Amino acid sequence: MRKLFSLIALVALVLGFASCDSTPKQNWKVVDGVITFDVPAREPGQESVLGLRVDPIPTVRIGFIGLGMRGPAAVERYTHIDGVEIKALCDLEPDRAEKAQKILTDGNLPAADLYSGEEGWKELCNREDIDLVYICTPWQKHVEMAVYAMEHGHHVAVEVPAATSLDECWQLVNTAEKTRRHCMMLENCVYDFFEMTTLNMAHNGLFGEMLMAEGAYIHNLDPYWKDYHNNWRLDFNQKHRGDVYATHGLGPVCQLFDIHRGDKMNYLVSMDTKSVNGLATAKEQMGATEFANGDHTLTFIKTEKGKVIHLQHNVYTPRPYNRLFQVTGTKGFANKYPIEGFAFHPDGLAESGVKYDDLNAHDFVSEQMREELMQVYKHPITAEIEAKAREVGGHGGMDFIMDYRLIYCLHNGLPLDQDVYDAAEWSCIGDLTAMSLEHKSAPVAVPDFTRGDWNKTRGYHHAMAK
Amino acid sequence: MRKLFSLIALVALVLGFASCDSTPKQNWKVVDGVITFDVPAREPGQESVLGLRVDPIPTVRIGFIGLGMRGPAAVERYTHIDGVEIKALCDLEPDRAEKAQKILTDGNLPAADLYSGEEGWKELCNREDIDLVYICTPWQKHVEMAVYAMEHGHHVAVEVPAATSLDECWQLVNTAEKTRRHCMMLENCVYDFFEMTTLNMAHNGLFGEMLMAEGAYIHNLDPYWKDYHNNWRLDFNQKHRGDVYATHGLGPVCQLFDIHRGDKMNYLVSMDTKSVNGLATAKEQMGATEFANGDHTLTFIKTEKGKVIHLQHNVYTPRPYNRLFQVTGTKGFANKYPIEGFAFHPDGLAESGVKYDDLNAHDFVSEQMREELMQVYKHPITAEIEAKAREVGGHGGMDFIMDYRLIYCLHNGLPLDQDVYDAAEWSCIGDLTAMSLEHKSAPVAVPDFTRGDWNKTRGYHHAMAK
Repeated sequence: MRKLFSLIALVALVLGFASCDSTPKQNWKVVDGVITFDVPAREPGQESVLGLRVDPIPTVRIGFIGLGMRGPAAVERYTHIDGVEIKALCDLEPDRAEKAQKILTDGNLPAADLYSGEEGWKELCNREDIDLVYICTPWQKHVEMAVYAMEHGHHVAVEVPAATSLDECWQLVNTAEKTRRHCMMLENCVYDFFEMTTLNMAHNGLFGEMLMAEGAYIHNLDPYWKDYHNNWRLDFNQKHRGDVYATHGLGPVCQLFDIHRGDKMNYLVSMDTKSVNGLATAKEQMGATEFANGDHTLTFIKTEKGKVIHLQHNVYTPRPYNRLFQVTGTKGFANKYPIEGFAFHPDGLAESGVKYDDLNAHDFVSEQMREELMQVYKHPITAEIEAKAREVGGHGGMDFIMDYRLIYCLHNGLPLDQDVYDAAEWSCIGDLTAMSLEHKSAPVAVPDFTRGDWNKTRGYHHAMAK
Repeated sequence: MRKLFSLIALVALVLGFASCDSTPKQNWKVVDGVITFDVPAREPGQESVLGLRVDPIPTVRIGFIGLGMRGPAAVERYTHIDGVEIKALCDLEPDRAEKAQKILTDGNLPAADLYSGEEGWKELCNREDIDLVYICTPWQKHVEMAVYAMEHGHHVAVEVPAATSLDECWQLVNTAEKTRRHCMMLENCVYDFFEMTTLNMAHNGLFGEMLMAEGAYIHNLDPYWKDYHNNWRLDFNQKHRGDVYATHGLGPVCQLFDIHRGDKMNYLVSMDTKSVNGLATAKEQMGATEFANGDHTLTFIKTEKGKVIHLQHNVYTPRPYNRLFQVTGTKGFANKYPIEGFAFHPDGLAESGVKYDDLNAHDFVSEQMREELMQVYKHPITAEIEAKAREVGGHGGMDFIMDYRLIYCLHNGLPLDQDVYDAAEWSCIGDLTAMSLEHKSAPVAVPDFTRGDWNKTRGYHHAMAK
């Protein structure tokens, strides 16, 4: 009886699936109930860049592209990093490049060459005396620029999200594999203080086996929409349903869960609310009459090892800023927003040296105990660079730690903290959630961008020179 | 090309779906990609009990069944309510009935008749001098007892969850419609102070249009498993995957969202982690070698009006107690755990009379402002009964407000705050989530237990005599 019902109904399902206007360009099929995109074959001459090392670069010569919102602050941070030369600055608008130049001259550093206009970024990439192209342009430009830079022999650091579609994710992976260049997404939140401490606690077993983690980008952008050149961000969201800005929430969780370093994301389901505030804003600012992105978008991702990642995206409604960052393990719990807190089963703390006589797993540990734990488990990298990072700043210091680590790894010929597979995995969520949303929250497979190598690295770690 | 892929793949899908061992007994089919259970036809002589009123009952004569964990406290609360007579007390174990009797005699109230043994509850229900049967037995017994009580002419109040399967949900609805008796689930959390205030704020427009709300039952039961007679709760969870205890999280949200009073739940998707702690506990306490219920279960529910409800269940890992209760609206935000907080767009507060000069929608309002708002928008029912409720107690007072309201409505011949459709909607989540989980998080339709009447009531409200 059930089989008959199913067969009849699935005719409607096929028609429904086939007639939908899905954003992703890849072909897809339904495998065991899960919408699954084809994985393109690796082309000849292309091989894995897992754990990629290149020769040490004693002085990293950098060209910056995109000096609007995040670029100038990045240039400023690099004036505080040893062993770099800022060779070139580029923006669509010449006056922005000149403003950034002033950061260098104010810091008594040599002037850089300036580029501007539609083709300026290509001229910058065509130079041979650059090691790293640092891209802070609107999302829509990231992949075109990153691919071109790698094809011209440069390593690439690119703002979040690195790519805006599944097709673009594969372009990044394939180009990195062909050119054997680094392609690091500039996901800064993985370097935030609470996140780094929690990662270190996890590696010390305080959470037992981690089972579920939450991340989010909940940030009402009402005061900021107009800061995006020609309204590019609102325009993007107007056209794209799904969690289009998942990396801040997802990045720290993927590091905790050893994604493509022993575990992998298998499939996701997504659900969103209708658009009310987004539509109203776009109507007011762009005369829009419809808006694809829901006001609040929620996603679950299941991993191979039976864990769940939970993501949220909401840039439209009045709520306190929140990236969630919650970790639920068999022995402990960590929670960053709205208040930082930890809870532990006594077993989880046995080796910490921190007294837990009053420990009650039904409550957060006391403020004093939390502070003690945060000191005991401060991540070694944070401990080393924290003072300077807080002085230089950049979202409280995490941006500086990110830049410091990127240059440290290039100086020492080490694999970067975030590789191109991270960039693809964390960026593909936009397209995949859109696909789920267009099919009534149906499960959608997350591609294995490593093409089978997800279990070859034993756990996430930051490479160190000694 | 896509159609071909889909057709090939869907053969696998059909076989996969058809061969799965799904818990629910109802037949189901896939409709437009959504697993959909058949809705049984209304039988002759059966009609809707939406807004059911019965003749006022000046003195409500009550029989209690189940005097283990929650029953004795319920009996104690009823000794503080006017216009009731406790006629009968029943438990499987005679000594428990006698202990509860002592609550009455200690309170200088007339002794009740006592019942015990396997058939004691039926003897209680067979009495004609009882108006209300109040059921606090293990979940597995709820529906059998509630149905029998209604069939013997009694109104029923039954602990959460009212039913443990979709089939049981329909039994409750059908029996209430046949007998025209009240069947109220004893969902107490809808009466908690923060929830009632938030509901009142919502009705006053402070959140604008509500878009998303979260609820949860996150409560590490490690210290309590053995308190459940013969380990019935662990035993139930051992056999059942899914969100088996959704009502505390879902109830308050459904009242906010006017479920079957202008909106309805359309479909859900669920994802769970593997079982680690649950299995370890069951191994230790019951010698179990497998455990169906995941350590953490997460669910999204989409409503007809484009809202999303987000639920979580975790009774296994060390975390602070958390029912979440978060409300995201176009104009405001409320958050109960781990700290109570509100955030508003200035528009949302325009009519409150509370000054909002320093209002910043990126942060919670100040503690002082929150307290002021909590006073201004205290729910009228809470305001009326709060002092006595806090004195009598029961989870801080909410249990007493629940009992008070039940008796108030029976005294005055009013529809109850929670009807049998609420009981079914909030209880069906266990089975529906199990179905989604067994099918890789596929969407599952939520049945319309009102059979088409979900849009006939204009908004949720508490019935008042004047």
